[in-house]
Amino acid sequence: MDNRPLILVSNDDSIYAKGVKELISRLVKFGDVVAVCPDAPRSGQSMAITVNDPLRITPMPDFEGAKMYKTSGTPVDCIKLAMHHILKRRPDLVVAGINHGSNASVNELYSGTMGATFEGCAFGIPSIGFSLTSHDPDADFTQCFRAVDTIVEKVLRGGLPEGICLNVNIPDIGHTPAGMRICTPCHGHWDDEYKAYTDPAGHTFYLLSGEFINDEPDNELTDEWCLAHGIISIVPTSVNRSVLIPKSLAWLYSLPSDYKL
Amino acid sequence: MDNRPLILVSNDDSIYAKGVKELISRLVKFGDVVAVCPDAPRSGQSMAITVNDPLRITPMPDFEGAKMYKTSGTPVDCIKLAMHHILKRRPDLVVAGINHGSNASVNELYSGTMGATFEGCAFGIPSIGFSLTSHDPDADFTQCFRAVDTIVEKVLRGGLPEGICLNVNIPDIGHTPAGMRICTPCHGHWDDEYKAYTDPAGHTFYLLSGEFINDEPDNELTDEWCLAHGIISIVPTSVNRSVLIPKSLAWLYSLPSDYKL
Repeated sequence: MDNRPLILVSNDDSIYAKGVKELISRLVKFGDVVAVCPDAPRSGQSMAITVNDPLRITPMPDFEGAKMYKTSGTPVDCIKLAMHHILKRRPDLVVAGINHGSNASVNELYSGTMGATFEGCAFGIPSIGFSLTSHDPDADFTQCFRAVDTIVEKVLRGGLPEGICLNVNIPDIGHTPAGMRICTPCHGHWDDEYKAYTDPAGHTFYLLSGEFINDEPDNELTDEWCLAHGIISIVPTSVNRSVLIPKSLAWLYSLPSDYKL
Repeated sequence: MDNRPLILVSNDDSIYAKGVKELISRLVKFGDVVAVCPDAPRSGQSMAITVNDPLRITPMPDFEGAKMYKTSGTPVDCIKLAMHHILKRRPDLVVAGINHGSNASVNELYSGTMGATFEGCAFGIPSIGFSLTSHDPDADFTQCFRAVDTIVEKVLRGGLPEGICLNVNIPDIGHTPAGMRICTPCHGHWDDEYKAYTDPAGHTFYLLSGEFINDEPDNELTDEWCLAHGIISIVPTSVNRSVLIPKSLAWLYSLPSDYKL
């Protein structure tokens, strides 16, 4: 068995989510699968880590031949705990998801599923995040299977460049999408992000809410355009966000190099 | 007063941290300052948002002329709540910090202070994160003042390119550093990230720990090299992590565009 690829799975919807189980059911064909997922939903956790609280790892019953663990941490904690304390060898692939809900456009920034994907990438392991654009707990993930099979098979064979992972979003259209396309993340933003309420004592509190606004709905190069047209979007994404210095930042070079307070 | 620049301040060490107060004491010279910070430390929160729990905003006494608020949310929540429910006009600048501890190299990924900086950047506002390489709650932030003054003045005057913010780290050397340099983030990683303990019932738990390993200690272009040599590091960083498609990903283009499950 040790010659089979080792695939580490995580998500942010918890070990109990349908999306991760459907994902595992596909991945066991490709290798030995170990899933390390949060013990409860951790949506919106981005790349958060648990700094001061104790973390616990609980083994769960095997699922379709995969080893299953839940942890009390974030998705990034799950990857780190797997790498340092659960896995006996270095994984060949990290796969996160299948997320219940889109991680296209700016959603990628906040997604715990993409956080786990970035963490796998930071370890230097080829990493893929899959999301279906449906928040339904009982969503039909069979729409994703062909994309999962195709991309996982290609990444296991061909790898990914160091430091680059894939953010794959699959449109919830009731059947397997007709194609996939490499995209850029759509420029967009959330409007009215918090709804205000008044508690019984007369104090205001806020709950996350809002509506996603696509700032470039006609741009065929974007993930949102593809998803709106029934096409799977693949955004190659870097864990290193630093940029070459644009000329417009030239003033930074003119800073004094030997100043005193 | 309305003609003065409006500066939104946040951090992840909480409204009570010395670092943010020292930062505010410098910024009030440059404009009207509104600080919206977590009500308790939120280190390691990256770009996490609070998805299902109620958020509260509590006004605090003014500090050196700055308006002060604390929230029950993450650093990103603080920026979002400020933009949607606290500020009366769009800020000209977002400044986060001064963080107690380095956010150089991979630390940027997990930092709540950089999370707030990225969120300001996602709103299209010039944004800067400042960090001092000392975790001492009573650290000497006067070492940072010349860098804060110089960079804030230049960004207020010259702006930053859309979607690019600055990750500024200042070495804790007991006096004002002799210079600053534009850098790339050092390739590095954390070793032994979790220490295992046994609780009274005999169960294992883990606490975040570890040691940062610099994988390229001799690279003069990196932030860690600068900091080790008493130089302030400035890493221009993009909120959009998508990358141009490397040729090595060409297999993605050959995916079938009309397959069926």
